[in-house]
Amino acid sequence: MTLKCDVQYRRGDTGFKLTRVGVKNVHKPILVKREGANGALNGTLNCKVDISVDLPAEQKGSHLSRNVEVLTAVLVESISKPVSGLENVAADICRKLLEHHEYAITAEVDICAEYFKPSRTPFGRETLESYTLLAKGRVFRGEKVRKTIGVEVIGMTACPCAQQTVTEMLSCGGETPVMSHNQRNVCRTMLTMDEDVDVEADELIDLVEGAFSSPTYELLKRDDEGQVVINAHSSPRFVEDVARNVLKSLVAECKNLPDDVEVYVSSESEESIHKHNAFAERTATMGDVRREAGL
Amino acid sequence: MTLKCDVQYRRGDTGFKLTRVGVKNVHKPILVKREGANGALNGTLNCKVDISVDLPAEQKGSHLSRNVEVLTAVLVESISKPVSGLENVAADICRKLLEHHEYAITAEVDICAEYFKPSRTPFGRETLESYTLLAKGRVFRGEKVRKTIGVEVIGMTACPCAQQTVTEMLSCGGETPVMSHNQRNVCRTMLTMDEDVDVEADELIDLVEGAFSSPTYELLKRDDEGQVVINAHSSPRFVEDVARNVLKSLVAECKNLPDDVEVYVSSESEESIHKHNAFAERTATMGDVRREAGL
Amino acid sequence: MTLKCDVQYRRGDTGFKLTRVGVKNVHKPILVKREGANGALNGTLNCKVDISVDLPAEQKGSHLSRNVEVLTAVLVESISKPVSGLENVAADICRKLLEHHEYAITAEVDICAEYFKPSRTPFGRETLESYTLLAKGRVFRGEKVRKTIGVEVIGMTACPCAQQTVTEMLSCGGETPVMSHNQRNVCRTMLTMDEDVDVEADELIDLVEGAFSSPTYELLKRDDEGQVVINAHSSPRFVEDVARNVLKSLVAECKNLPDDVEVYVSSESEESIHKHNAFAERTATMGDVRREAGL
Amino acid sequence: MTLKCDVQYRRGDTGFKLTRVGVKNVHKPILVKREGANGALNGTLNCKVDISVDLPAEQKGSHLSRNVEVLTAVLVESISKPVSGLENVAADICRKLLEHHEYAITAEVDICAEYFKPSRTPFGRETLESYTLLAKGRVFRGEKVRKTIGVEVIGMTACPCAQQTVTEMLSCGGETPVMSHNQRNVCRTMLTMDEDVDVEADELIDLVEGAFSSPTYELLKRDDEGQVVINAHSSPRFVEDVARNVLKSLVAECKNLPDDVEVYVSSESEESIHKHNAFAERTATMGDVRREAGL
Repeated sequence: MTLKCDVQYRRGDTGFKLTRVGVKNVHKPILVKREGANGALNGTLNCKVDISVDLPAEQKGSHLSRNVEVLTAVLVESISKPVSGLENVAADICRKLLEHHEYAITAEVDICAEYFKPSRTPFGRETLESYTLLAKGRVFRGEKVRKTIGVEVIGMTACPCAQQTVTEMLSCGGETPVMSHNQRNVCRTMLTMDEDVDVEADELIDLVEGAFSSPTYELLKRDDEGQVVINAHSSPRFVEDVARNVLKSLVAECKNLPDDVEVYVSSESEESIHKHNAFAERTATMGDVRREAGL
Repeated sequence: MTLKCDVQYRRGDTGFKLTRVGVKNVHKPILVKREGANGALNGTLNCKVDISVDLPAEQKGSHLSRNVEVLTAVLVESISKPVSGLENVAADICRKLLEHHEYAITAEVDICAEYFKPSRTPFGRETLESYTLLAKGRVFRGEKVRKTIGVEVIGMTACPCAQQTVTEMLSCGGETPVMSHNQRNVCRTMLTMDEDVDVEADELIDLVEGAFSSPTYELLKRDDEGQVVINAHSSPRFVEDVARNVLKSLVAECKNLPDDVEVYVSSESEESIHKHNAFAERTATMGDVRREAGL
Repeated sequence: MTLKCDVQYRRGDTGFKLTRVGVKNVHKPILVKREGANGALNGTLNCKVDISVDLPAEQKGSHLSRNVEVLTAVLVESISKPVSGLENVAADICRKLLEHHEYAITAEVDICAEYFKPSRTPFGRETLESYTLLAKGRVFRGEKVRKTIGVEVIGMTACPCAQQTVTEMLSCGGETPVMSHNQRNVCRTMLTMDEDVDVEADELIDLVEGAFSSPTYELLKRDDEGQVVINAHSSPRFVEDVARNVLKSLVAECKNLPDDVEVYVSSESEESIHKHNAFAERTATMGDVRREAGL
Repeated sequence: MTLKCDVQYRRGDTGFKLTRVGVKNVHKPILVKREGANGALNGTLNCKVDISVDLPAEQKGSHLSRNVEVLTAVLVESISKPVSGLENVAADICRKLLEHHEYAITAEVDICAEYFKPSRTPFGRETLESYTLLAKGRVFRGEKVRKTIGVEVIGMTACPCAQQTVTEMLSCGGETPVMSHNQRNVCRTMLTMDEDVDVEADELIDLVEGAFSSPTYELLKRDDEGQVVINAHSSPRFVEDVARNVLKSLVAECKNLPDDVEVYVSSESEESIHKHNAFAERTATMGDVRREAGL
């Protein structure tokens, strides 16, 4: 029996177009390979994927199963020929989406995945830390794909203001850093660029970890724990400082990034002295950021 | 002792401005009163509030405690003089934020709150259903506040395509609607407008509930349960249809809304036949939507 | 037409009984009144309710709509005659469940609700802080209801071990407390007792807040912020200490609680130096706890 | 410098023992190998791990870093010598915890991990579906480890009661199944047993998928979508039926499981006609379940 259900092809009852129609929270493993990256990146990433295209007014429904078909095809290809970076997977899916949805003008893909990377404590002990990789693709029919590479990194901030207040209240201070409140900070950094520009996820993670009062570690023996506390209080940083330090490092370390790369940085501190969080955020282009840095 | 901690006032180390700096997930009760609305709205809403302003490059830190001070002041005022609608609370906080952060050019407030509203089952039994109210305020110094009123409503969709496929596969059909897969759908509708325009949250909820295959109810006796299933299968709707039906009703029922009102509608179905969700989304102005409707 | 659907009454196909069958995440407002409590408690609580009874092997289905009917009846009663405490609401629902499910031997109810309570900062400024109230009811047919009253409170811990390590590493110390890592701690305390025993939620919250290195506050001006940091580092506490301090205070302050009251205390620290949390937990009776305290 | 911080070894201030002290939400990749299982299982699982031991009254703090050390050691071992099943990893960690916490009498480990397994649609098309693996270990010093293997599986239920009600209300019926409400059901099945008993995760997943009205699939072409809807409505099942069908299959298919194996089954339906969920749960031993099945 040939099923010719054409409900989706019917003229829409209402005449309204839709900006995005698709699927959310599709879970799939994707095999990724990246030159020069650590071993952990050359492996399978457990991905959560959102996929969508636009829908013209004259069509009743989007062919949602085609989104999962395209994703599955890319996944199967990745087994024999590992892709270099989730953001390139996202861009690849975007192009294929426009081939399979002949009525669509735009396509969007969002991927996130847990990622493990080796690190070293202050006293040089090896650890394995977890991060979140973020990748996106966006395309308008007839134009080049814009892809996004991003990372979400957990670190630690110690508050400079409370440190100064305590110093005044107790008339203490001197060479030893004074106590302050400190807490987990989650920093998210995303770069959006043309498909032919490349950024390494590992380098982006290192850059973000340098922006905190201190990175954090899953395993700390006594001396390392003490050193992390001392390091954090020697580099007290507001939630604002974390975001600004990321911008500063992007300017200093990513000199080959074109001016039209879009930058998004957010920093959120789970304040130990409050029940609520503090946050800071910047949206800009690399060109804007370089101008503000006086370049 | 007068503490003169001026860390925040220092020139920023990096020279970068920040788009938004503030607090997230502050929980506070706000007393709201609205003429003509049901009794449940004339009461205390448990709100989760995000508040932020921008920060110029030359200032190291934002005065975060002022955000909570402004919120607390508005809350205290609301006890003696209940505000008409959370979106007006958000707009009010926005204005006060610019007064208290003399260095800021923009201010943003996001509020969400659980809300209960009486409803009636198909056979007329009284129920009390829960919804989420969304409210926002956005202001640029020197301009008028733009406020957003939104609702998140849970309903039910039955799939028209699977219904037709089953009809063909089983050569069934006739007067009785044929089985299909059906599921929970979460529809979010938000309208952004000038401060002097008013929309009732209750009317917006009713409008969204009419867009589903059927509303859902916390308490259904046997006949009501059967009727909800019959109603849903008599009005099978794609995830796309829910979003488009909201647009259609906005055009038909909100004739007094100016053309520059921004409209956001999203519809997400927790597909019973998949482990993932399907979604549809539209971003437009009332003017766009009216033109597409042929007005 | 009278619908006599008797599917649920049919003999189960399999012959297996079930421990619990019911509904989860029913959202309803409940009006609560408690003598001597603060004004905020004498009002409407937004509750999330789980309700279940057991099901004998010989019956195919539980009458789930009766659970919501019982809840609605109690809610309606609460409007004219506010109940004293959510745990008494839970106990009341339990009794009514056994009346309406004639085949059931056990009934269980779990309620949680957000709750606001006035507090004062170290320098005496008024604040309004948010907490979670927890309440349960459990009954076996023919026996008395056992009810549970519980609270979830957010506070702050500063680590005593890192503080000592830093003191040694920097050869510092003296009268001023030394820096350490500090973080949010979530402490949950629950007491299960016979229906005729009474405990005030407000007193339980105060008792738990005294167990942290310091309580936390939504609004802190400079001096209060400094004082909270100083207080926390003057009372450094492990995640274990928080749980044990709650037990100690229960022994000291709740002398009228019978020995058969069941005690559950958990403390979870969102470690600022790690990406993971630390936790400590105790399950015991008041009798056990008193014996360990040497009484 | 040798740091001799002995804060944890000090006598507890309060004299109370603690039931569990440890770490939560430690993220680590673990390499697992299992004979006869599908290829996907012979690979790296992204695990979330909770680890704890008890703490005697006379000791102030638990050595929390030892928990992560033991986990890391097991993880490193797994790279050269893959372990057969997460539940055996959990049991292994349990034994090592008692070696490293000389003061502890009990140790507990909880692991959960996302898992992908190939499946086939009704018309035989290949798909890759996602599941959650659950594993636990519990040990008392001097006794054998009890380990738990569990799975969380998403499927679909169609309601038998609404189907009968609609049949009566519309006087329809016949050979074609009548419409009903249907929805996602999440079924969790866990078996707790001695360390030398073995159960395959893949077989447990298949057994649970057979308990729904129909399994669900990430990719369905038209005919498969229609068939899933027809299959589900031909096997309408209450939330209770899913739990009981799992028990029935455990009796029929796991004849070699000892009578003292502890069984936990839960089934939760995200009701399409309500905003709340329905659930059913059973706790028993294999011996109990067999007796109820008449064996």
